[in-house]
Amino acid sequence: MDPEALALDAANPLAAFRSCFLRPEPDLVYVDGNSLGRLPLDAVARIRRAVEHEWGERLIRSWNEGWIDAPRRVGDRIGELIGAGPGQVVVADSTSVNLHRLAEAAMVALAPEGRCDLVTDDLNFPSDRYVLQGLAKRFGGQLVVVPTDGVHGDLEATVAAMGPRTAVVSLSLVAYRSGYRADDARINAAARAAGAMSLWDLSHAAGAVEVDLDRAGADLAVGCTYKYLCGGPGAPAYLYVSARLQERLVSPIQGWFGQHRPFDFDPEYRPAEGIDRFLVGTPPILSLLGMEPGVELVARAGMAAIRARSVALSEYFVSRAEAELVPLGFRVDSPRMVVRRGSHVLLGHPQARGLVEALVRESGIIPDFRAPDGLRVGIHPLDTTAVELARVVDELVRLTRETAWTRHRPQGRVT
Amino acid sequence: MDPEALALDAANPLAAFRSCFLRPEPDLVYVDGNSLGRLPLDAVARIRRAVEHEWGERLIRSWNEGWIDAPRRVGDRIGELIGAGPGQVVVADSTSVNLHRLAEAAMVALAPEGRCDLVTDDLNFPSDRYVLQGLAKRFGGQLVVVPTDGVHGDLEATVAAMGPRTAVVSLSLVAYRSGYRADDARINAAARAAGAMSLWDLSHAAGAVEVDLDRAGADLAVGCTYKYLCGGPGAPAYLYVSARLQERLVSPIQGWFGQHRPFDFDPEYRPAEGIDRFLVGTPPILSLLGMEPGVELVARAGMAAIRARSVALSEYFVSRAEAELVPLGFRVDSPRMVVRRGSHVLLGHPQARGLVEALVRESGIIPDFRAPDGLRVGIHPLDTTAVELARVVDELVRLTRETAWTRHRPQGRVT
Repeated sequence: MDPEALALDAANPLAAFRSCFLRPEPDLVYVDGNSLGRLPLDAVARIRRAVEHEWGERLIRSWNEGWIDAPRRVGDRIGELIGAGPGQVVVADSTSVNLHRLAEAAMVALAPEGRCDLVTDDLNFPSDRYVLQGLAKRFGGQLVVVPTDGVHGDLEATVAAMGPRTAVVSLSLVAYRSGYRADDARINAAARAAGAMSLWDLSHAAGAVEVDLDRAGADLAVGCTYKYLCGGPGAPAYLYVSARLQERLVSPIQGWFGQHRPFDFDPEYRPAEGIDRFLVGTPPILSLLGMEPGVELVARAGMAAIRARSVALSEYFVSRAEAELVPLGFRVDSPRMVVRRGSHVLLGHPQARGLVEALVRESGIIPDFRAPDGLRVGIHPLDTTAVELARVVDELVRLTRETAWTRHRPQGRVT
Repeated sequence: MDPEALALDAANPLAAFRSCFLRPEPDLVYVDGNSLGRLPLDAVARIRRAVEHEWGERLIRSWNEGWIDAPRRVGDRIGELIGAGPGQVVVADSTSVNLHRLAEAAMVALAPEGRCDLVTDDLNFPSDRYVLQGLAKRFGGQLVVVPTDGVHGDLEATVAAMGPRTAVVSLSLVAYRSGYRADDARINAAARAAGAMSLWDLSHAAGAVEVDLDRAGADLAVGCTYKYLCGGPGAPAYLYVSARLQERLVSPIQGWFGQHRPFDFDPEYRPAEGIDRFLVGTPPILSLLGMEPGVELVARAGMAAIRARSVALSEYFVSRAEAELVPLGFRVDSPRMVVRRGSHVLLGHPQARGLVEALVRESGIIPDFRAPDGLRVGIHPLDTTAVELARVVDELVRLTRETAWTRHRPQGRVT
């Protein structure tokens, strides 16, 4: 085993957090925690209590015994992880629904100024682009998709794409393929200078990199909780609306959880004060409460320590990939500068799909395949070890050299 | 004990289903199963498996081992309970989000004909009215709210309110206060004749009354799953789009779960075939899978038997209320004709709030208070017994006579 990997793990101040997750297959190398984070042990007990005690025993009474406040309570806790002061984040719906709602709210607010266009780049999630495309069509505007080299965002081109018709600039803070981390403070400043609003997707950023929405001058943000935050499959998403904008924006879906006093059953809609007005319907309580322990784990570890560990691990992995995998035909399709990189690394290879299948089948390693030719290695700072990343490199070397993972294995060859 | 109640319960063919729910307080009379249904015992095991095995052990692999199909699978199962053939129902989001999306889809489709108005009535949920108000404003149209007597829908006035500017007619199939069951077949026919689309909220109807969306000619419908379907707190909602309309309507939130091959990561949105196009984002898996056992229980009992039991119980309760509570100052604010009544009964009383508090505090009975003066008794056909309903009547008689529940109890009185 590589002594550098052993040394890195020995020096890991967060090592104890590894035992906070269920690990039924100790040898499984799970480098897909950025698609679905592992199960925190605390979540098992929390969900059980939510089911058996709160639903089963307390029944409807539980709404007044903690459920009703959960979207705000957990929202504020997530806020601490993304640099948002209290009262600016709530948990609600899915990332796509929230992205749609906040983008539409901004467009409604800015349409009177003749602003019906949206700006994004081609690093952004396809799912986000679908949402933004739909809104452009609805408002008779355009979705401007800034082209990039596929790895790095193009700050200058993105700023240049903003103009007097731009309502919303929506980007991933960390790109889902390359892991490029955008320069959010400069994008926010440029959006404001152009009279537009910024809208960030933090799905691959929260729990992976240090985010400081308030200080960076962000307007709006959304994100999922099932990646680095370990909130569980499809756990509800969150949304951030800067306190500066909460009075100005109206949620386009006038739901009763966003109503001034929902249990007065007033026939007329009157938005609640503050961030609550961006709630819509009854939240999925079991998924919401089951998400809280993952958020707590990340909060306990602290984002500075998490980021330091992430940097150490990804620097190690990228260095080894460049030294050992690039000569075998791989590309490192992630930024080389760590300040511009999130916590996952994309390796390009013409046979990435087959390699991923072979890793899963033969090597007990679960990475992600991202079409057409990407092998994505997610580094969860509370879970992944350098020793595991060393194994990923070693296995890729072995598979590529032996070609045992292809369907074209020469007949009669002994391996 | 009232021998009629004992006889009704002795003759209950669904009596065995009562033991399918957790019942930690055997003496608790829970007549609020139409706000939050009880916990099915099967749900405890199902959620535990979803957490510990599917999330904890199988991790990301579970998406291909059942999760990805869950919205359609459970949707089709719910479809069986509401008379919708396969491929017309999916589980997604919350009732409010779905109501908004389907109403907006209909309005976008009909706006070119100059149709920007919506019709509802004052029996409908305030939450639904908020959603519809928001859309009327967005489309520059009007929300026409048909006035009623507060108990019964006004079929003629509702039909008369539909005109050449009407895009959507949206009503609760069973009203949340009075329990009035609308004549959906006639409303659907009138909406079609007027060139509008019907959009039903089935939240208080599914699992409570027999619903036959296809045969009644419904266009669109939504509903929650946490009431009679016992899906758990905030369990995801469902939506129905008649096969006739699926090609014509476009979901206004272009989400990746509604995309034609979401894992191709195509940069352009192309809606999926059929009902799938109305999905948006990643569903909250724990809440979704935890909902399935409740739906299965209702399906196993069968809607004909459920309705028969519901009718027997509500007829018994209304008769006793009329005989014993009306003389004490109560009103029965639900329809007298059982064919126009769902599975809950609203009692009006000037001091309804205090009575509800006293029932909870003193009598071990949990009904619902509905402002300003409604005491709502939910009859869950798989759970509620006639003996329990007898206790509700007896306690209301006692409380009203003794006035022990008021704050004006005469000093020194011995009770």
